[in-house]
Amino acid sequence: MIETPYLLFLGDAPDPLAAKVAQGIKDWRPDNCVGQLRLEGCNADMGLTDMTLEEGRAAGAKTLVIGVANRGGKISAKWKEVLLAALDQGYDIASGLHNLLRHEKDLAAKAQETGRALHDVRIPEVEYPIADGKKRTGKRVLAVGTDCSIGKMYTALALDAEMKQRGMKSSFRATGQTGILITGEGVPLDAVIADFMAGAVEWLTPDNDPDHWDVIEGQGSLYHVSYSGVTMALIHGGQPDALILCHEPTRTHMRGLPDYSLPSLEELRDLALALARIPNPGCQVVGISVNTKALSDDEANSYLAELEERLGLPAVDPYRHGAGKLVDALAAL
Amino acid sequence: MIETPYLLFLGDAPDPLAAKVAQGIKDWRPDNCVGQLRLEGCNADMGLTDMTLEEGRAAGAKTLVIGVANRGGKISAKWKEVLLAALDQGYDIASGLHNLLRHEKDLAAKAQETGRALHDVRIPEVEYPIADGKKRTGKRVLAVGTDCSIGKMYTALALDAEMKQRGMKSSFRATGQTGILITGEGVPLDAVIADFMAGAVEWLTPDNDPDHWDVIEGQGSLYHVSYSGVTMALIHGGQPDALILCHEPTRTHMRGLPDYSLPSLEELRDLALALARIPNPGCQVVGISVNTKALSDDEANSYLAELEERLGLPAVDPYRHGAGKLVDALAAL
Repeated sequence: MIETPYLLFLGDAPDPLAAKVAQGIKDWRPDNCVGQLRLEGCNADMGLTDMTLEEGRAAGAKTLVIGVANRGGKISAKWKEVLLAALDQGYDIASGLHNLLRHEKDLAAKAQETGRALHDVRIPEVEYPIADGKKRTGKRVLAVGTDCSIGKMYTALALDAEMKQRGMKSSFRATGQTGILITGEGVPLDAVIADFMAGAVEWLTPDNDPDHWDVIEGQGSLYHVSYSGVTMALIHGGQPDALILCHEPTRTHMRGLPDYSLPSLEELRDLALALARIPNPGCQVVGISVNTKALSDDEANSYLAELEERLGLPAVDPYRHGAGKLVDALAAL
Repeated sequence: MIETPYLLFLGDAPDPLAAKVAQGIKDWRPDNCVGQLRLEGCNADMGLTDMTLEEGRAAGAKTLVIGVANRGGKISAKWKEVLLAALDQGYDIASGLHNLLRHEKDLAAKAQETGRALHDVRIPEVEYPIADGKKRTGKRVLAVGTDCSIGKMYTALALDAEMKQRGMKSSFRATGQTGILITGEGVPLDAVIADFMAGAVEWLTPDNDPDHWDVIEGQGSLYHVSYSGVTMALIHGGQPDALILCHEPTRTHMRGLPDYSLPSLEELRDLALALARIPNPGCQVVGISVNTKALSDDEANSYLAELEERLGLPAVDPYRHGAGKLVDALAAL
């Protein structure tokens, strides 16, 4: 569990895309952000107050979160200076970088000396159990995609935000680095040992109030042969009551697999539902979330209308239209 | 890769079942065994020549394989004495025990001093790639089960043995501890990090001669919610040309999951085939392997005849009848 609130470290981000982790935190958990810390040459801006480390602490920040990708797979001397000073000033540090904070000897030594925590969110910090498949109380919804990187995290965050706005009980359950940094907790599922994947998802979504929704972030795709085992563990460990199908209509092949075409939404619906009904016979597919970024407004609207007609399910782009229709469908379950 | 031949260490096995790893090696790779080493009180016997460590070395043994489960999760002083002496005499040691050889300080120090290897086959020793899904040359068959621990390894070993006897080109590809100790190599798939599972299976079953069969050991079951992600990675990483369905007809529920009933063979056939056709559209289900241990000869024969009629596929218990019918079906593909 990462302590909030955060000061967001944007470093010397060459462009806004490099700071997409910070953008996610700012978009979805603005109350967790007291400000941003930018170095010379930074070309990203979250629209937060620029602060020094001292100002961040004075504003209550407990953790410095690295919200930017680094270049060349190493932590530069300029960054290191800031990170060491942050530990001295009482910050924990959280990072989703491939190269781990704990492997930097000076950071590890300083953290030890100051008693601060280094959170490398790519690495599991819990010994997860083996899944027992027992039916848990509370409700769960999982986003599954026709491909990887298709909007599953965005969809889950939008569902959670809409539910909270309506006063429904919900928790976004992060299963990847960015999601974990956004919420401060979760399971880095792609880094879990095979035997414990489904158990990690059960651990993440425990018994809860009967009217509480766990909104589980999806990973991979049943149709993406590199990562389908991770998706399977989410479906069987998450025992969802509801599935949301995620799709991007202009992809010509599976991400990183030029020889693989995407399945149809009907194929995904039938396969995911058959698998989800093994732990939860009552599971339903309740809606479709489409990333229509590549379409005009008119194209998007007519595509979504066509999908609603074809599949008999509400279809939205939560970025354009919000997740209201999907939450209506979940609330009606 | 574990060096052969082996001297099989049976320790003080309280009963034959405790030495089932040794039994598997003796049954399937008798040429790899120069003899057995038993301590006082051992109640298991592989029918091999009893040897001291010295005699084993003189007979050519390169590795002492722990073929017996230990009690209480620790390596006893009596065992330790033998293992240390083995390293001194030039043996490597291989083990599938939960407690790792490398974590025993005296063994680790002695191995370092003598330059010998400690093989803990539960732990991956390779950095596996992420799967790329590219079509590979050669043929592959995978055993999939209605449940865990249902005879998939036995089936695969029987297929491989029958193919070799017919002069066909085949390799048994081990994916679990026992299989790895039997063949001396493989991937301990349940211990691989989630993101690399399918890539590990691709690595295990690389391009090969067009008429060569990789006979891939299955793990878990698509219907077993604790381990289904591992099974999925085998199907997508293995890109099998042929599937064999494995079943045990008297199970009343999924192993360790009292609330889950087993799927029918038809359900398994349809689900496994749909998933296998994602990487390999030509995949076929070619036969059924049934563990009929709990049935009489007559019951077994009538059950298998009924299955053949019902599913239109050859159905055998490879332990009772050999794997000939299944290899006929593979050869006909």
